[in-house]
Amino acid sequence: MFKPLALRAARSQMRLSAAPVPMRQLNQSHGPRRAISMQPHVLRKAMAVASLGAAAALTLAIQGACGGGVVECDAPTEPKNASTKVSHKLDVSHLDESVLTDPSVPMRTRMATYVKLLQSRIVHAVQAEENSEKHGDDTKNFLVESWERKEGGEGISCVMQDGKVFEKAGVNVSVVYGKLPPAAIRQMSADHSGLVERIGYKTEGPDAEVDNMPFFATGLSLVIHPRNPFAPTAHMNYRYFELSHPKTLKDGSPNPRYSEEPAAWWFGGGSDLTPTYLFAEDARHFHETLKNAADQQDAAFYPAWKKWCDSYFRITHRNESRGVGGIFFDDLTLPTWNKGTPTFIPVFDGQKHKAEQLVSAKQHDRETLFRTVRALGDAFVPAYIPLVEMRKNMPYTQQNLDWQHLRRGRYVEFNLVYDRGTKFGLMTPGARIESILMSLPLEARWEYMDGTTGTGRENSTAALMDKAEKAASHPTGEMAARDEIQDVLEHPRDWA
Amino acid sequence: MFKPLALRAARSQMRLSAAPVPMRQLNQSHGPRRAISMQPHVLRKAMAVASLGAAAALTLAIQGACGGGVVECDAPTEPKNASTKVSHKLDVSHLDESVLTDPSVPMRTRMATYVKLLQSRIVHAVQAEENSEKHGDDTKNFLVESWERKEGGEGISCVMQDGKVFEKAGVNVSVVYGKLPPAAIRQMSADHSGLVERIGYKTEGPDAEVDNMPFFATGLSLVIHPRNPFAPTAHMNYRYFELSHPKTLKDGSPNPRYSEEPAAWWFGGGSDLTPTYLFAEDARHFHETLKNAADQQDAAFYPAWKKWCDSYFRITHRNESRGVGGIFFDDLTLPTWNKGTPTFIPVFDGQKHKAEQLVSAKQHDRETLFRTVRALGDAFVPAYIPLVEMRKNMPYTQQNLDWQHLRRGRYVEFNLVYDRGTKFGLMTPGARIESILMSLPLEARWEYMDGTTGTGRENSTAALMDKAEKAASHPTGEMAARDEIQDVLEHPRDWA
Repeated sequence: MFKPLALRAARSQMRLSAAPVPMRQLNQSHGPRRAISMQPHVLRKAMAVASLGAAAALTLAIQGACGGGVVECDAPTEPKNASTKVSHKLDVSHLDESVLTDPSVPMRTRMATYVKLLQSRIVHAVQAEENSEKHGDDTKNFLVESWERKEGGEGISCVMQDGKVFEKAGVNVSVVYGKLPPAAIRQMSADHSGLVERIGYKTEGPDAEVDNMPFFATGLSLVIHPRNPFAPTAHMNYRYFELSHPKTLKDGSPNPRYSEEPAAWWFGGGSDLTPTYLFAEDARHFHETLKNAADQQDAAFYPAWKKWCDSYFRITHRNESRGVGGIFFDDLTLPTWNKGTPTFIPVFDGQKHKAEQLVSAKQHDRETLFRTVRALGDAFVPAYIPLVEMRKNMPYTQQNLDWQHLRRGRYVEFNLVYDRGTKFGLMTPGARIESILMSLPLEARWEYMDGTTGTGRENSTAALMDKAEKAASHPTGEMAARDEIQDVLEHPRDWA
Repeated sequence: MFKPLALRAARSQMRLSAAPVPMRQLNQSHGPRRAISMQPHVLRKAMAVASLGAAAALTLAIQGACGGGVVECDAPTEPKNASTKVSHKLDVSHLDESVLTDPSVPMRTRMATYVKLLQSRIVHAVQAEENSEKHGDDTKNFLVESWERKEGGEGISCVMQDGKVFEKAGVNVSVVYGKLPPAAIRQMSADHSGLVERIGYKTEGPDAEVDNMPFFATGLSLVIHPRNPFAPTAHMNYRYFELSHPKTLKDGSPNPRYSEEPAAWWFGGGSDLTPTYLFAEDARHFHETLKNAADQQDAAFYPAWKKWCDSYFRITHRNESRGVGGIFFDDLTLPTWNKGTPTFIPVFDGQKHKAEQLVSAKQHDRETLFRTVRALGDAFVPAYIPLVEMRKNMPYTQQNLDWQHLRRGRYVEFNLVYDRGTKFGLMTPGARIESILMSLPLEARWEYMDGTTGTGRENSTAALMDKAEKAASHPTGEMAARDEIQDVLEHPRDWA
């Protein structure tokens, strides 16, 4: 019943093969639940809602730009007095794609252009999946909110909720800049070791040289929860950060170190897959697509970043991973930071101490790192969308949905308890909570002592009872399929 | 539609009056969902599951007995090699109720006896509500797991899941004891200010006098989530903690301070109510019942502890409370700790600094404080069960359920992000996660930019759109009822 289906060679042409074993067709009452009481046109307008400042909060949250106790952090707050444009169309015709490969253009502009173009591609790919079997009035588009931030910045939040194929999908970009106060710099240094030494200023205490540092951040964040329990959830985030020398020192005198070049910059991000049921070929396809993209830049990247991903997305208290992994990295910069000299880049896997960092055999500069980020960002649609296309029409049962909701409960646990960006966002006064918690699924479930996932199930009478009773009442294969994904979550595998 | 129904004077005889405005009868597909695929006898056995060591983890978690980084904390871990008895009956016939009022019996025995007797009363009251309209095979009882811990301790975990009236109900007691290592004492001191000064030992560093302190903890923890969206969720916890002088000092010599009397002891706990829709008379009844019980002991208690409750159960990032409040207190002891002199007790409201503590006009001793805890514990059944009885058969719609699930999502947010006990439990290696997360509801929902609760809804186009569309598609009164409870959650009221 849950045997792998062969992935067709042409990713974009993937179609669902007939499931090897017939499943009970889903009862209508298990479909989109709001449809019970809301008309389609109401649904489309009401639920496909977007946010103001979503990505601003998310990007900075993920950057760890400001500390939990920092009240005056000016970035991830509600963009008050912002001008906002609401529509159902994402227009990128004004963007100049040629800057992506033009090293003479500042990196800020290039990365901001890239994430906007990528957002547009993803939004259109998701919409195409959502609407591929619908016509006219029945189609559902993202609600697009474009906002401008008076203090400096802009963003576009695209959210689709309660679709036929997608239960909840959010794709946000933001470009924010401003001044980082000393406490925020301190917090950022805690998350990015070696930062203070590299920027070389004292920012706190009576002998502080500067009392803030200009920052710039741009990125894309997405979480996609499909409705079909056989279609996996995906998460992706890519971001670029710059810290600059202020024009003047704390005493008002000109800063001799001031330069157009940032004092420090880095890329971070990754994408990962969270299936409800394991289809090994889906996991392989996702990882192989990312690996191919990464390998073309540097063969040292994928192995280190897959490991980092498994380590980061771990629900420690359950002793299981959030999903089957993907890639994750942070602090992707040059050892010499802004000097611009091509050099060997440390490839960190998130676990080793600095002294034991893996070292790539290839020489890199900011250009090759940007190319890496683009290659990985570009790989998202071919890595993920075919999996949705293949699974979105598989018949499913209430038990499949229950298991999906239980696994989404674990997603909630990870995001609320461990995710750095979420935790930081929740602690930030004035943060846009709706944007930070956009990643949570529409529906989640917590069963006490579920026999498949329950901690301590090995020696618990209650969990063993639950397991036995479920085995007796669930269709053949269901419990084995749950065990199969559970085993992978407990023991992460490399899929490529 | 949501106008208060008059509370009848005799609480135990409360019956549901006809709802003032007829509501759509719930479609069958919205009832207990597992019933779709599981037979009743399977349901009863499989879902009404209990835990090993549940209360041990919870009690100590709430006590903050061991720090997050403490690996060798011996209490809230899985009771390995424990003997466990599983049944559907909670037998308290062996308990001697007379110890409750006998000051010559050690307090540990008295409190342990009390929580077990209270557990039995609550379990029977919940079962009576669940089964009041059922017969024979149809009835559902708690699954009862009694466990013993080799290292010292015992407990009884009672859990009912997926009932007709109760979606999830857990009532756990535990009695645990052992040795608290220095790091755990340090962590406990952080949560209970003044503790180290009062116990008077150096427990860390080269000149430490002792390397551990014996502790004893007993308590009751419960969370009850009814199925009907008009019946409120309740939470209660009462606990007693003792820290004792070790018999020998670190160097092996006899401890001159050793005594049968504890070095420090305190009570903590409270109970609170989380409705999905506001029925003012339910909130009043709950609070007045608690207030009456508290006032008979000391009129200073209720006002301070209601305030503390509102302050503790606050979902800061949503700027709303988890529910309508109740009471909450900690560190309930005497200023002179174990000296036994009757004296004025500081009644802390959780917000003021020590110097500004409210001071009760009454004299207390450990006897009056224990009587207070019993009075409040005893008040739970009459404060809460009549509300379930009154609401459990109210007809409800899918929209009512959606709102209930959304509010339960907030319950999840509080418990995972803020609750001290939960956070501590999740960080404790070897903790019984199922027991710690027993408090999470069976089902929860997160709607992006919900127009009633969305942060920043005042100035968000998306939230305003959602609100308008819901108002157009939902029955008259539904949106007003959501606004009503939301307003109370944002602006806590005193109900008594």
